[in-house]
Amino acid sequence: MKKERRRFLALGAGVMTGSGCKAPIEKSESGAHMRAYGERSPHENTVRVIRELTKSPGTGSSRTPHADLFGTITPSALHFERHHSGVPSIDPAKHELLIHGLVEKPTVFTMADLKAFPSFSRIYFLECGGNSIGDQSGNTQPDVQRSHGLLSCTEWTGVPLKTVLRELGVKTEAKWMIAEGADAGRMARSIPVEKTLDDALLAYGQNGEALRPEQGYPLRLLLPGWEGNTNVKWLHRLEFATDPAMSAKETGYYTELGKDGKAQIFTFIMEARSVITRPSGGHTITPGFHEITGLAWTGRGRITRVEVSADGGKTWADAALQEPVLPLAVARFRMPWEWDGKPAVLQSRCTDETGYLQPTHDEIIEVRGHFSNYHYNAIKPWRVAADGKVTHV
Amino acid sequence: MKKERRRFLALGAGVMTGSGCKAPIEKSESGAHMRAYGERSPHENTVRVIRELTKSPGTGSSRTPHADLFGTITPSALHFERHHSGVPSIDPAKHELLIHGLVEKPTVFTMADLKAFPSFSRIYFLECGGNSIGDQSGNTQPDVQRSHGLLSCTEWTGVPLKTVLRELGVKTEAKWMIAEGADAGRMARSIPVEKTLDDALLAYGQNGEALRPEQGYPLRLLLPGWEGNTNVKWLHRLEFATDPAMSAKETGYYTELGKDGKAQIFTFIMEARSVITRPSGGHTITPGFHEITGLAWTGRGRITRVEVSADGGKTWADAALQEPVLPLAVARFRMPWEWDGKPAVLQSRCTDETGYLQPTHDEIIEVRGHFSNYHYNAIKPWRVAADGKVTHV
Repeated sequence: MKKERRRFLALGAGVMTGSGCKAPIEKSESGAHMRAYGERSPHENTVRVIRELTKSPGTGSSRTPHADLFGTITPSALHFERHHSGVPSIDPAKHELLIHGLVEKPTVFTMADLKAFPSFSRIYFLECGGNSIGDQSGNTQPDVQRSHGLLSCTEWTGVPLKTVLRELGVKTEAKWMIAEGADAGRMARSIPVEKTLDDALLAYGQNGEALRPEQGYPLRLLLPGWEGNTNVKWLHRLEFATDPAMSAKETGYYTELGKDGKAQIFTFIMEARSVITRPSGGHTITPGFHEITGLAWTGRGRITRVEVSADGGKTWADAALQEPVLPLAVARFRMPWEWDGKPAVLQSRCTDETGYLQPTHDEIIEVRGHFSNYHYNAIKPWRVAADGKVTHV
Repeated sequence: MKKERRRFLALGAGVMTGSGCKAPIEKSESGAHMRAYGERSPHENTVRVIRELTKSPGTGSSRTPHADLFGTITPSALHFERHHSGVPSIDPAKHELLIHGLVEKPTVFTMADLKAFPSFSRIYFLECGGNSIGDQSGNTQPDVQRSHGLLSCTEWTGVPLKTVLRELGVKTEAKWMIAEGADAGRMARSIPVEKTLDDALLAYGQNGEALRPEQGYPLRLLLPGWEGNTNVKWLHRLEFATDPAMSAKETGYYTELGKDGKAQIFTFIMEARSVITRPSGGHTITPGFHEITGLAWTGRGRITRVEVSADGGKTWADAALQEPVLPLAVARFRMPWEWDGKPAVLQSRCTDETGYLQPTHDEIIEVRGHFSNYHYNAIKPWRVAADGKVTHV
């Protein structure tokens, strides 16, 4: 966030004549060859921060560096990850999806079978239910990548699950679908049958190309607006049943503890949230003009409003939303701000199309108590000190 | 486009019980570690086709493999390229943009200066004026990558040029802006001043991250809906003037020859076009269901309709458009099709919000004659033979 001093040139100086123009470039030798598959400039080095939770490889998370990103699309190479048994290596020519249980016609599909169905594409956000788990419990993270990096947004392509199920016939007694991944741990989640007949997608494409391995290559379940963990990666089995599987990831994890200490299970929808990504924790700013920018999203449709406060929540003003604001996708918001050099607290809050207003930390504690870990969606304040250093509050 | 035979399973077979389920995966050993910056699966190998036109490195084009892509977003690694002096290597910390000539306050901006302005993001298509140059002249290309691969669509971020110019003050006598790149050949184009005060963007971001080197890193001019060549890459100089520069790329190239053999110069806007990307040249299909899908775009705003014909243009039916249809971005269209195994000719035509209907090849020849090379936007037919082979017509 360091501002460089611009050089204003005197009119009529030699530098202004077309032919004598100073060429402000590093070098002008003959350029490089083209590449069949492009890469970043060697000067660009923003990466996912990896946190491995066990000694088992790939068990943990990597987080999207939102402070360094622009717009609404997350590059696939920087999409967040959360794995429970690492990233399996799958040959798509051999991968199969079994759909069975309470269906009239149990079937095994190859990837070619699935790609032969009518396809569908949409830009959707995806957020881990444990995003900002530290902020809820008081273990506040120092920057937006660590605090909010388990959120990303890409364009997904696949076949609507309901299109496939129409051929198989889901029996009326089926109330749940158990989705299982082909990772070593066979990560599994139970999904109410209503979602499978609504907007669930069997996704094989992301941002124009095939899914990346860490996003479930060659096939993942995509449940728009729902807790990331239910969007089962490396999908190889869907079983329809009368009851949920009560799998490890829906009993031991991804349940919320209420104020009374009792577990709330099968909480799927990610409620409305927003966060300022620039300036944010770890930045140092100088007095003068800044653009405050960030992201807002909701699992209940469209973001309708984002407000920004620079005085710790005493006063708020409407931010501009990047057009178009898409349902179930992140919205980029922007607000011009003139910093006077005095201590400030920056924060954003959003409203979604249901009228839901993003709560404060205290409001969440009041309702959910201190035990809750998942689905934390409170307003995130960033403190700006007199020396320009931005830190978490 | 080969269809695999699905395996329908008998009800009650052992394979259907939850615990005894056959796991249709390659292997289930412990997964791989996470990566700070993701890569494709080693099973994915679609690439840009590179055509080098001279012995000077990087002088030529590389084309987006549309037959292999999904949705509307082109991955940056597969965005088309067209360079005239290769890809320069630029250190963004040293890169500067000089804006001078007929402005009140000539100024040199660093990248940090430009990023300190309010930012703007939008999904825009970009198309080379020479896309499908072969189809116009009879040198028809065998597949959609070679015939239409100089088109891509990504989310661009930067500062609106008009925001920057407001600080500098463009003089009333300025009618043109000459934009020059920092490539060895100093590629330059002249832009009418009206566009610079409309939607022109000084772009530093693409698909969420910094521009890729071959897209102009660290800065390019983005002129939504205009001929690709005017979107000057590695932008280092903007000069306001009373007259155009009459640079090599606007006199020797990127002009159209009319029916009378006279050159039409400064033809900027890319007219409405569409093309079927699947099935398309090089594919082999089998009788039965297929989804016909492709892209449509227009430099004049929004695509309002895409029609598809399977009988060489005798009858047409409306295709479905992927929502949302964004202005100056590609629209993905889809149409279900049951192939009866008889020879067929597939083609699409689009209409944009001005009411313009994409013309046939013959209609273009009738109006422009045989000399024209650029801005070729005719309907593209693909022939399906009785053996299922798809070829260009």
